[in-house]
Amino acid sequence: MRIARFSIDGNVAFGVVEGDPSDPDGPVLDIIKGHPFAEFERSGKRVPMAKVRMLPPVLPNKVVAIGRNYAEHAAELGQTVPDVPITFFKPSTAVTGPGDPVVYPSFSSEVDHEAELAVVIGRMCREVPRERVQDVVLGYTCANDVTARDVQRSESQWARAKGFDTSCPLGPWIETELDPSDLGIMCTVNGEQRQLGRTSEMVRSIADLVVHITEAMTLLPGDVILTGTPAGVGPLNVGDEVAVTIEGIGTLTNKVIKRD
Amino acid sequence: MRIARFSIDGNVAFGVVEGDPSDPDGPVLDIIKGHPFAEFERSGKRVPMAKVRMLPPVLPNKVVAIGRNYAEHAAELGQTVPDVPITFFKPSTAVTGPGDPVVYPSFSSEVDHEAELAVVIGRMCREVPRERVQDVVLGYTCANDVTARDVQRSESQWARAKGFDTSCPLGPWIETELDPSDLGIMCTVNGEQRQLGRTSEMVRSIADLVVHITEAMTLLPGDVILTGTPAGVGPLNVGDEVAVTIEGIGTLTNKVIKRD
Repeated sequence: MRIARFSIDGNVAFGVVEGDPSDPDGPVLDIIKGHPFAEFERSGKRVPMAKVRMLPPVLPNKVVAIGRNYAEHAAELGQTVPDVPITFFKPSTAVTGPGDPVVYPSFSSEVDHEAELAVVIGRMCREVPRERVQDVVLGYTCANDVTARDVQRSESQWARAKGFDTSCPLGPWIETELDPSDLGIMCTVNGEQRQLGRTSEMVRSIADLVVHITEAMTLLPGDVILTGTPAGVGPLNVGDEVAVTIEGIGTLTNKVIKRD
Repeated sequence: MRIARFSIDGNVAFGVVEGDPSDPDGPVLDIIKGHPFAEFERSGKRVPMAKVRMLPPVLPNKVVAIGRNYAEHAAELGQTVPDVPITFFKPSTAVTGPGDPVVYPSFSSEVDHEAELAVVIGRMCREVPRERVQDVVLGYTCANDVTARDVQRSESQWARAKGFDTSCPLGPWIETELDPSDLGIMCTVNGEQRQLGRTSEMVRSIADLVVHITEAMTLLPGDVILTGTPAGVGPLNVGDEVAVTIEGIGTLTNKVIKRD
């Protein structure tokens, strides 16, 4: 099932996506009664996706991100895969939705795309045993871990380099029925392929990451884990359209704009 | 004015602290009607502080923390003061209140206290001009940037070392009328002085930090900035009582316990 979050008549709603995005009339949203993190029903009230403003499918309390989780990407940065996963935060204020702009930050002149599979946590959890990881995952979406690469190089901690406003596009929806172990993941800029990989190339699996992160901290419903980016990262410029596509999920598209 | 947050009869409330903590009967809380981040009135309904459970005075969306902002502390870690402030996040799940336990993490054997002045943001803001910084600050409280020092050394990003559950005690209340530029700041462990400094020793002032942080990201009402720790950091052990005292604010006390 695909669950979208959107704005309609000034209200925020969740809906189940019906139909294929390639349909001539486009997909339709069956509005949810209740909350997708708890029991919910479809209302049967349907609205065309083209008529609503799509929002980030979840508004996380925190985004926990993992660095260098694909060996080939670590190598392209001139780095090795670390013994322990590199773990950092992106704040909720960095999250932006499908179709929303990525605003080029004033303090950087080298901003990169990083296509990533995002794991959406469905229930409050800590110290999750490996065999229970599936129970705490609601589903998966696409993410772009937009990075001010020059700032990342010059500052030891990445809060500014990877935490600036609009540096965390998420979407277009949460796919709740998906085996994430071997999905194609691609990033294009203005239609040209930049990153291409498979989630099977991850050094640490999603289960590894959930166990590792929840050893230290509680995850809340709606929290998001970014699982690292495959090789091919590269620059974004003002005016570019960047798209992250993950097999079985869909495409997250954002345009890079200049700050007003 | 001092604004506390507390639990009474199962509900969360805010109150204005009246009287001196050294009064024999202890201070009293005048319960607030409304929210301290907006217009509010005192209700005149008073409750003794000793009868309530004190909570973190604010539940931040994010805590933005600054590393090595006191030269003497940087030196004791064998480091220099960086050209650009080291900026990192502590998540909301790390926040705990006055009197609450700090739970010694399972994955560390070297946990340190770091007494810090915390700035509580009062309104949503970004790109704050220096002369407007005071307008976005609601007040100040005490913080302990509890740190798994061994993990901080071994992992390049500090999300686990400084983001584990209970690693961010805040409290006991928000002091809204205070000149923060030259306050004594002290940390004791089991009554013995460990850290002692003055906020005037900060390398970057609060105004510098707000300008720097909001150049990159939006701060929300209730977000907290930790302004760095003075020299004297040292280990905490299970059973220790750690207390952060800041002149003009008060004392934040927490006991270190073993995980169940």
